[in-house]
Amino acid sequence: MTDVFDHPWLGGLFADAELAALWAPAAQLEGMRAFEIAWIRALGRAGRADPVQAEAAAEALAALAFDIDDLRAGTAQDGVVVPRLVAQMKAAAPGPVHAGATSQDVIDTATALAMRDTLALIDTRLAALIEGLTALDMRFGTRPLMGRTRMQAATQITVHDRLAPWLLPLLQHRTRLAELRPRVALVQIGGASGDRAALGAQAEEVAADVAAALGLGNPPRAWHAMRDGVAEFASFLSLITGTLGKIGQDIALMAQQGIGEIALSGGGGSSAMPHKQNPVLAELLVTLARFNAVQVSALHQALIHEQERSGAAWALEWMVLPQMAQAAGRALLTAAALASQVQRIGTPE
Amino acid sequence: MTDVFDHPWLGGLFADAELAALWAPAAQLEGMRAFEIAWIRALGRAGRADPVQAEAAAEALAALAFDIDDLRAGTAQDGVVVPRLVAQMKAAAPGPVHAGATSQDVIDTATALAMRDTLALIDTRLAALIEGLTALDMRFGTRPLMGRTRMQAATQITVHDRLAPWLLPLLQHRTRLAELRPRVALVQIGGASGDRAALGAQAEEVAADVAAALGLGNPPRAWHAMRDGVAEFASFLSLITGTLGKIGQDIALMAQQGIGEIALSGGGGSSAMPHKQNPVLAELLVTLARFNAVQVSALHQALIHEQERSGAAWALEWMVLPQMAQAAGRALLTAAALASQVQRIGTPE
Amino acid sequence: MTDVFDHPWLGGLFADAELAALWAPAAQLEGMRAFEIAWIRALGRAGRADPVQAEAAAEALAALAFDIDDLRAGTAQDGVVVPRLVAQMKAAAPGPVHAGATSQDVIDTATALAMRDTLALIDTRLAALIEGLTALDMRFGTRPLMGRTRMQAATQITVHDRLAPWLLPLLQHRTRLAELRPRVALVQIGGASGDRAALGAQAEEVAADVAAALGLGNPPRAWHAMRDGVAEFASFLSLITGTLGKIGQDIALMAQQGIGEIALSGGGGSSAMPHKQNPVLAELLVTLARFNAVQVSALHQALIHEQERSGAAWALEWMVLPQMAQAAGRALLTAAALASQVQRIGTPE
Amino acid sequence: MTDVFDHPWLGGLFADAELAALWAPAAQLEGMRAFEIAWIRALGRAGRADPVQAEAAAEALAALAFDIDDLRAGTAQDGVVVPRLVAQMKAAAPGPVHAGATSQDVIDTATALAMRDTLALIDTRLAALIEGLTALDMRFGTRPLMGRTRMQAATQITVHDRLAPWLLPLLQHRTRLAELRPRVALVQIGGASGDRAALGAQAEEVAADVAAALGLGNPPRAWHAMRDGVAEFASFLSLITGTLGKIGQDIALMAQQGIGEIALSGGGGSSAMPHKQNPVLAELLVTLARFNAVQVSALHQALIHEQERSGAAWALEWMVLPQMAQAAGRALLTAAALASQVQRIGTPE
Repeated sequence: MTDVFDHPWLGGLFADAELAALWAPAAQLEGMRAFEIAWIRALGRAGRADPVQAEAAAEALAALAFDIDDLRAGTAQDGVVVPRLVAQMKAAAPGPVHAGATSQDVIDTATALAMRDTLALIDTRLAALIEGLTALDMRFGTRPLMGRTRMQAATQITVHDRLAPWLLPLLQHRTRLAELRPRVALVQIGGASGDRAALGAQAEEVAADVAAALGLGNPPRAWHAMRDGVAEFASFLSLITGTLGKIGQDIALMAQQGIGEIALSGGGGSSAMPHKQNPVLAELLVTLARFNAVQVSALHQALIHEQERSGAAWALEWMVLPQMAQAAGRALLTAAALASQVQRIGTPE
Repeated sequence: MTDVFDHPWLGGLFADAELAALWAPAAQLEGMRAFEIAWIRALGRAGRADPVQAEAAAEALAALAFDIDDLRAGTAQDGVVVPRLVAQMKAAAPGPVHAGATSQDVIDTATALAMRDTLALIDTRLAALIEGLTALDMRFGTRPLMGRTRMQAATQITVHDRLAPWLLPLLQHRTRLAELRPRVALVQIGGASGDRAALGAQAEEVAADVAAALGLGNPPRAWHAMRDGVAEFASFLSLITGTLGKIGQDIALMAQQGIGEIALSGGGGSSAMPHKQNPVLAELLVTLARFNAVQVSALHQALIHEQERSGAAWALEWMVLPQMAQAAGRALLTAAALASQVQRIGTPE
Repeated sequence: MTDVFDHPWLGGLFADAELAALWAPAAQLEGMRAFEIAWIRALGRAGRADPVQAEAAAEALAALAFDIDDLRAGTAQDGVVVPRLVAQMKAAAPGPVHAGATSQDVIDTATALAMRDTLALIDTRLAALIEGLTALDMRFGTRPLMGRTRMQAATQITVHDRLAPWLLPLLQHRTRLAELRPRVALVQIGGASGDRAALGAQAEEVAADVAAALGLGNPPRAWHAMRDGVAEFASFLSLITGTLGKIGQDIALMAQQGIGEIALSGGGGSSAMPHKQNPVLAELLVTLARFNAVQVSALHQALIHEQERSGAAWALEWMVLPQMAQAAGRALLTAAALASQVQRIGTPE
Repeated sequence: MTDVFDHPWLGGLFADAELAALWAPAAQLEGMRAFEIAWIRALGRAGRADPVQAEAAAEALAALAFDIDDLRAGTAQDGVVVPRLVAQMKAAAPGPVHAGATSQDVIDTATALAMRDTLALIDTRLAALIEGLTALDMRFGTRPLMGRTRMQAATQITVHDRLAPWLLPLLQHRTRLAELRPRVALVQIGGASGDRAALGAQAEEVAADVAAALGLGNPPRAWHAMRDGVAEFASFLSLITGTLGKIGQDIALMAQQGIGEIALSGGGGSSAMPHKQNPVLAELLVTLARFNAVQVSALHQALIHEQERSGAAWALEWMVLPQMAQAAGRALLTAAALASQVQRIGTPE
């Protein structure tokens, strides 16, 4: 619990419960379970398993309570949770559970579900933030504001001119999201070496069936060693936090004494100076933006995913992706909260 | 000349003359000149300058030989080349040259031209590389190859299975490129504080005119402080080098003694061991991928572009973007060269 | 619990319980408590508080059970836990608790304790790893091994020649650690704006007293806005993981079929291929090295810590530093485990 | 010439001629020449070459005019310049030129010379900047200034309190430099696979001789695959730019209208607003700091230097290190210039 998103008190500042739930261990486990259930059913429908037995297995998997300590021990041993997860499943369910699948199919499909759901949540929040900023523009847009370039007063503009660069990229982000979604909301099905060989002639049928059951797209082949979708997803998250970081930086600058171009309700207090009103949420947006701007490098490094599966590059994704998603989620909540705290914006009278 | 792309001998390994030309000072200067020519003509057409004088100015600007030493002295003074560039222009051309424009309009429009032309060149090279890899697949695709996961032999696959993850992301990259292009091939027109105020009622007319003259899109307003397009462009460059880095890593691993799954012509020699054939180009792909995976962080940091213009964030783009473009260009050339060096691929007999 | 160090099953691979305990919320809380206890006692001794009351306060603070929910709510409000933490303390203890101190004094001193203790643990582990690798050298050092440069066979070397570049940097790291320690194991005492003004003539006396009580150095002034020690600490952590990542990469390459230059006990299993022995720990070392090589950038960005206290830059440290420390700790454990798994090293007979 | 340090006009802002000269191709060539001259003389003294012939060779090497086009063609072929460089040398000089050495010995020794000389120059500049800032403190230190935390006015401090965190880290950097120097100012001598085997019993004698001739330390063995010194050097450069970036950020904030806590001579002009005085140098410090904070990640990634020589990791150093050094050099010049531009500092009257 050292990370700020799960931290007992720092979580008050950083946590985004709704988004965290999409990447939480419980969600990962349910994603992996959903894959295996869809998989055994698909094997049954494709004639690679007895259909009645397959359905019985699916129901047993749905009811299975996992032994987490055993999963942990297995991950320590195998570097990946799936061998032990499947062993628990096989002990509980009849038939060829997991047959023809591999660890990466299970884990990456769960990640694809998390990415898909994250995009849906982000899209909703982008829309809400666009509304919030539009409302600010309606309310204060015509007021005068000193335009500032290179941190120096330039020419007078309006509040609308300051808000537009906060708002317009959000519209672009929604477009990007729609373009990106079909590249990452994809089932992962490849088997041992990614060639779907173990499924024989039924490979495409099984893949399409599993994809449909999970509400994911069915790519032409496994993306085990093609991580461009994951890196693009991470880049997108950082574009969002970057846009919001600019908003935060602007607000922190506007809130300075001597500038006073914004009035916010609900600033943070100080232990030494009770009178202070710190622009805590504005600073948080800057922090989250710089955090994701660093993290994005990891997912680009992880593109160098050697051969049919890189344990090293894959695990690097595990370390970074959930946190980037939470940073983006928290930044969207924070920006919306900030927008609602604005009591005045524009040159002080 | 310390950077590897322009280096007298390291350039033999790193230089991409065709792509470098798009970002070279000469191209930047021509881009800025093209902006000012289009601008003065647009002012003339919009009635904000005498049309005859404007045309005379355009012709004078087209013929102007810049004093580079003076530009350098001006950049040292002003942090940006445009004040001195415009002073030289005004001394040579009649009429309201640059009137209503600002430094960032000039420089960013030139950068947009470079991004647009870079995307065109990359698209052509992506197509060529797809062809080259498809030819490899035609020739060697059915041969057996040991699938390798977590750097261990897994199950036997075919050469096609190894090549597909090299090839398929390139198709995605072409799609991404087409989506991204209209978000970055955009004229920059904002004036002093980005609000186009100095153009009065003719702002939209002038902007559309300049955009059309330069073959760029005309965005709803200036993107002075909205850098998501630039960061997305950089992310895209790094997606490309990442994909190619995976190819390079795979080839270097396949070329190991004891593995011998690929035979290449034209490897590099050693000063100490003349018999060695080093997979120099494969390693270069890894280097370029890791380089861009680092650099991409800078463009994401630069999203925090405060107020109407951030000198600090903007200059960070100047430091990094041309090199990322060249790394991507060089990687595409290198991958194509490598594909053409393949003499055999697959399990040795 | 989305982060890999605290994750219910990924923790099996990534967790380092001993090191995590140094950065855990419980440790942070105890560090902050220790600061306030030492502080009030120092105020008593310096005559800035009634000594008897101060001792009573110290004992009350030692016994205080914190209300974590309240701390979380306070952090959400203030961006920092200390105002609410101090409010709880003041409610429980008499006298001028926290008087003259500020949030950053409390939190950074707790961080300094964590850095100090992390260095001590790392030093012990470096010594152990040096021993482990030396033992390997004793056992296998004279065996022949193919030297490999640019991933190609070069000239024959000995196992000793491969091991020396694993070992020698560890000795350097111990030297670096000894040099770095006095630059980071430092009490933080500055008060509201970092000038120790609220302590009047007793500033130095109080600072020295608190430092001695906590076993930390007493710097000439507060390091509120001087974060070079923190960035150096982070760089040091990444030097360690980088050295160990090189070991991991070498082992993964040596363990390839067709190379077979190392034999390890206890490799990881596969869900699809039970016969496989994956070099899981070797890959983990590479992952942790690349992770820290990314994260280090954040602490260098955080050097730009504006004015007397930057909420934005400071919080970026909170997000990254505990994870870097854990990555370094886990890498040291992993390398030692790997060394003990080596059953043979050298050219196979 | 796309990089800002060598750019015809951007160089006015970014170039540091004195430091660039240490990393320029000419300096690299002279470093490599110096290595080979010292090498052949050492072979002569150690009895591994005829001493008279060795001296003749040394003199021929000293007079040799290199064919740069040939070096470029060789680098394109071999991935490294040395095979062709040595071929030119052997054609011009008698005796066993380069015998027992390898590419990495030559190039890394040249880099060590550049690192050593960079440290010397930086140390001088650190001392000068410390003087400049101390002079500011003498002149303005007692003046009042509003302390600002979290970008909000806190309590009144003095100018001295603002300056101390600019100054004190520079003293630490000089200490770090002295500690680091012996870890990087080291001759590189290993031969083909890094074991110095080709030198037989004279290995240590030759190494010590070459080291002494070049004014470098003689490490216990080659550091071909131990890159911790290089990464530490890069981290150090970024610590410096980070400290100076904090100064730049502070100055840019102090120079805002409405704050006015600093008056600078010689700010930059605007093409649209001739009246503006932009804090160009202050912004430049921020840019250079963020640049190096990104780049440092590359050198940490390059720690994963597989086997006896990694072409991929090594070339990544070539891409990044010279630019980081120049950024540090330029930042030191810029900070000194800024200090000399200060006409007033402190709360405006």
